Amino acid sequence: MLDLTRAEIEAAVDLDRAFAALEDGFRAASAGRVQMPPVGYLGFPAHNGDCHIKFGHIADDPIFVVKIATGFYDNPAKGLPTTSGMMIALSAETGAVVAILRDEGWLTDLRTALAGAIATRAGMRADARRIGIVGAGTQARFQIRAAAHLLREREPRFAAWARSPERLEALRRDLAKDGIAVEPVADLEALCAQSDALITTTPAVEPVIRDEWIGPGLHITALGADAPGKQELETALVARADIRIADSLEQSLDHGEFAAAAAGGLIGRSDCVELGAVLAGQAPARRSDRDITIADLTGLAVQDIAIARVVLDGITR
Amino acid sequence: MLDLTRAEIEAAVDLDRAFAALEDGFRAASAGRVQMPPVGYLGFPAHNGDCHIKFGHIADDPIFVVKIATGFYDNPAKGLPTTSGMMIALSAETGAVVAILRDEGWLTDLRTALAGAIATRAGMRADARRIGIVGAGTQARFQIRAAAHLLREREPRFAAWARSPERLEALRRDLAKDGIAVEPVADLEALCAQSDALITTTPAVEPVIRDEWIGPGLHITALGADAPGKQELETALVARADIRIADSLEQSLDHGEFAAAAAGGLIGRSDCVELGAVLAGQAPARRSDRDITIADLTGLAVQDIAIARVVLDGITR
Repeated sequence: MLDLTRAEIEAAVDLDRAFAALEDGFRAASAGRVQMPPVGYLGFPAHNGDCHIKFGHIADDPIFVVKIATGFYDNPAKGLPTTSGMMIALSAETGAVVAILRDEGWLTDLRTALAGAIATRAGMRADARRIGIVGAGTQARFQIRAAAHLLREREPRFAAWARSPERLEALRRDLAKDGIAVEPVADLEALCAQSDALITTTPAVEPVIRDEWIGPGLHITALGADAPGKQELETALVARADIRIADSLEQSLDHGEFAAAAAGGLIGRSDCVELGAVLAGQAPARRSDRDITIADLTGLAVQDIAIARVVLDGITR
Repeated sequence: MLDLTRAEIEAAVDLDRAFAALEDGFRAASAGRVQMPPVGYLGFPAHNGDCHIKFGHIADDPIFVVKIATGFYDNPAKGLPTTSGMMIALSAETGAVVAILRDEGWLTDLRTALAGAIATRAGMRADARRIGIVGAGTQARFQIRAAAHLLREREPRFAAWARSPERLEALRRDLAKDGIAVEPVADLEALCAQSDALITTTPAVEPVIRDEWIGPGLHITALGADAPGKQELETALVARADIRIADSLEQSLDHGEFAAAAAGGLIGRSDCVELGAVLAGQAPARRSDRDITIADLTGLAVQDIAIARVVLDGITR
């Protein structure tokens, strides 16, 4: 049995292989080849925390994966990271534990970022390169690094907005160390106006992106809404979009960014497509350069399986 | 973070503390003080295997537990153990991983055995000491050892029946090494006739214990039915029992030993009591020495939490 620390895991990940594995995973999920039961949930309201347990198996894969991911939102005040957790890979042939991945939540951050870059590349115009990031937390950093890698051939230009100017400046400094220039933008409406694609990474429970700020041709990848009550985009904007892409139709319409519009009867299942179908060429991500396109990513167990496979392949390669 | 091997885990368990922790856990569950979402399940029909993921939290407990338990029923033919798995204990205050318990399924076997002994002591007559074990697998051994410990003051006498005489003889030999005498009985009806309590440990999908074999005063603890379709006791016997005790009313009536009688409209929720309520003195386990009593144990996450706590307390004590 492998027992891997975060440092070993980080060293084992090859980004190009990881992107390919994630795309394969999304295609498998949309094709119905992935066993993904409902996500397990425990709440710890006394400590403003929760735990999500995701598990699944891709048909014919020799391993399956169980992921435990915690978020305790008062941790930063205690000097501790908000998120934590681990993944366990088991043999789908004998049930034995194959590997413990003590990633402390890093793989979740990474696979979320990879999915964001994949969805953004799929949805944005072919000539687009101006990417606006909304938020300045951990996931904002991960998204910029992932998009910088995946879109490197079109030389993407990054700008970012956050509620706190200090956190925005810290984001700029951190990315500069990685050699990635990020332009801080003080006004969110201005960021919307100057971007070809937006990636929203906030835990907002009230929409931060207003319908009237979004013009023709823009693509938005929304990551924040992963639980009931969370919403980053105005419902009218979701309803107005020309194409809506969800990692999982079921999750997105139930508790993701598309939930409010669905609950209001403005959109239905047939008004959305799945990312895996887009990546398989079965559904278009946009039909014209003037389409407004929105991708909503709620997070799938197949992403965890895919990224765990990349780590294990990286270790044994 | 603690990372414990099976040997370290076995050495850390104090049986008396473990019995007490399990009883506390059942009481907490029946009192509604335990967060126990539905059990996660993955199936691997190509390899005759499955995986159950149990997780829960006892109110105010500083830790919570996620358990992964696999059963791959073709493993013995490959020279591998059927069951495997691990438990992960996490902080309910910060979400950090506190301990990885690489018990390979041993703690599940143990906590199941402890629950069996607890339910048997609760349900059997005060003067009873003749315990009949049905089955000769791993859990039969665990049940005998647990009952021998918990009931030691009344000097229990064990007899056992199994379909295979060879496996029955192997069971006898194994327990003899522990200083526990087990009388092999060739006929299951005879075992029923000579016992004060039966503990059934088979994975039967058709009843093995017939209604007509069971006389007044007998107690039965049934452990085998932990999934839809499994059943060890004839439905008429379940319907005829004077007292029915379930670890979880919900599970037992849905997919446990009481499910067939419930589905047939022969019993309802009000015809059963919960083990935790019995242990709390809120419901009787039997009303007379002539009562037939049946306890059905389907397995609860609270047992996993309790036994993990005992291990961690044993390590740090």
